[in-house]
Amino acid sequence: MRLATISQDGQPTAALVTDHGVAPVSALRGRDAAHTVRDIIRHPLQDAEVRLLSAQARELGDIEWLPPVIPPKNIFCVGKNYLEHVREGAKAEGVPAKVPEHPIWFTKAHTALTGHRQPILLDHDLTDHLDYEAELAVVIGRPTFRVSVEDALSHVFGYTLLNDITARNIQQQRNQWFLGKSANTYAPCGPWIVTADEVPDPQKLRITSAVNGEERQNGVTRDMLFSVAELISDLSRSITLEPGDIIATGTPQGVAWGMDAPRYLEVGDNVSVDIVGLGQLQNPVVAATR
Amino acid sequence: MRLATISQDGQPTAALVTDHGVAPVSALRGRDAAHTVRDIIRHPLQDAEVRLLSAQARELGDIEWLPPVIPPKNIFCVGKNYLEHVREGAKAEGVPAKVPEHPIWFTKAHTALTGHRQPILLDHDLTDHLDYEAELAVVIGRPTFRVSVEDALSHVFGYTLLNDITARNIQQQRNQWFLGKSANTYAPCGPWIVTADEVPDPQKLRITSAVNGEERQNGVTRDMLFSVAELISDLSRSITLEPGDIIATGTPQGVAWGMDAPRYLEVGDNVSVDIVGLGQLQNPVVAATR
Repeated sequence: MRLATISQDGQPTAALVTDHGVAPVSALRGRDAAHTVRDIIRHPLQDAEVRLLSAQARELGDIEWLPPVIPPKNIFCVGKNYLEHVREGAKAEGVPAKVPEHPIWFTKAHTALTGHRQPILLDHDLTDHLDYEAELAVVIGRPTFRVSVEDALSHVFGYTLLNDITARNIQQQRNQWFLGKSANTYAPCGPWIVTADEVPDPQKLRITSAVNGEERQNGVTRDMLFSVAELISDLSRSITLEPGDIIATGTPQGVAWGMDAPRYLEVGDNVSVDIVGLGQLQNPVVAATR
Repeated sequence: MRLATISQDGQPTAALVTDHGVAPVSALRGRDAAHTVRDIIRHPLQDAEVRLLSAQARELGDIEWLPPVIPPKNIFCVGKNYLEHVREGAKAEGVPAKVPEHPIWFTKAHTALTGHRQPILLDHDLTDHLDYEAELAVVIGRPTFRVSVEDALSHVFGYTLLNDITARNIQQQRNQWFLGKSANTYAPCGPWIVTADEVPDPQKLRITSAVNGEERQNGVTRDMLFSVAELISDLSRSITLEPGDIIATGTPQGVAWGMDAPRYLEVGDNVSVDIVGLGQLQNPVVAATR
């Protein structure tokens, strides 16, 4: 099942996505009922509801896609989780490549979240080094504390795509990565969540990114240094994960920062992240107005 | 005005705190009305309400103090914001002290928040290097984006205390500080918020911490490398701050990590953070059960 959050008459509502279009859950459950994706995580759609919604699904014209989890919770991110990306980053910094022995965690502000086809704002007063990072993102489905690697995937509600947009100059200048990765619109996410039952093995996904249709990254999630299950287990050793929490699982090689002549994002670019079987997340780069 | 969040019959409610005790706002506005501290930030208490609540304030016996802002938003934290703490940290790491030219931002998970007198959980499977960090915390009062240093303080709802509890081994092991500072209960906060009108200058506050009554830290907020106003302005250059967001402004020297023979927190310890004019935040260190 694919679940999105879309804007309808200015209100966010969860929506079932089928090959024929989308069907807002609010149309079924009523405007006042609980129908955010987080509500659905807690109170899953019944089979009868899915059948009714599937029958209602239709093209909605200019759909306004919102980040799939609203209201958002934590956005946990892991850095340096693909070996070749560790190497390209070390080269860019001019330091020896050091493979992490443990996951390196940071966060993005939830205010950075934006949806499919929404603009990534480029503010040249902040950065001339705006970069993309294609990532598989995990949506947590139930309270999770001290879960073993073996049990970890049973705590996943579904999977989506996240572009971990980064101002490299700020990331480097501030030492801690949070600020350079958390400006408004720096976390495009979506277009939708594919529920976990349709993703038998999250370590067998092809992940690519492209700028203006030209491929930049092309990796496979089996190359993660720490698997999705290991990441969930590691975080949950000390933090209680909550339904709706997002875990961005790191990016493969091919970011602009790692190039000999970095080709950073520019106003007018179109960035896409693609995970085979999950979907494609596209965002235009637009000049921030002042 | 002092505003706390307390638990009443298992429900969080904002409460006015006076010299005579506390008065839950729910008693005035009714159980179903909006009465969290975030509601009050949006819809301030009217003078008549304050008068009525003040008259009702009484000792409530064993008050259960919750984190003052519920439900929580982002917890932004700044590292290395007092020169002498920069020096003690560099000594502990065995590297030259490097004074930050810009604020170093990281976050704590909101799930780490806990209230006055609530336990800090020490899990020896995670750490034998549990440390305290006394900090002035700012509570944002209105949406804040691209605010100047001059205007920044007008966006503050109030001030509170935060103990930036840190597992030093995890902080060091993971390079990014988030995980070592975000375990459950690692963000004691409170006991209450003192509204900004009663804090004419946030850079003139004496901040101390003590373990079992023995003073460990003793600093003045004027020694911050980046002032509260500069911190708010810096964050808001790229992130829209929201009402209820918390900014922890860094810790002065005197943490266990900086000692020649570090005296880390142990089960049975009592940690207190004190800011003259704001209040005292006390927490016992308790063994985590498995």
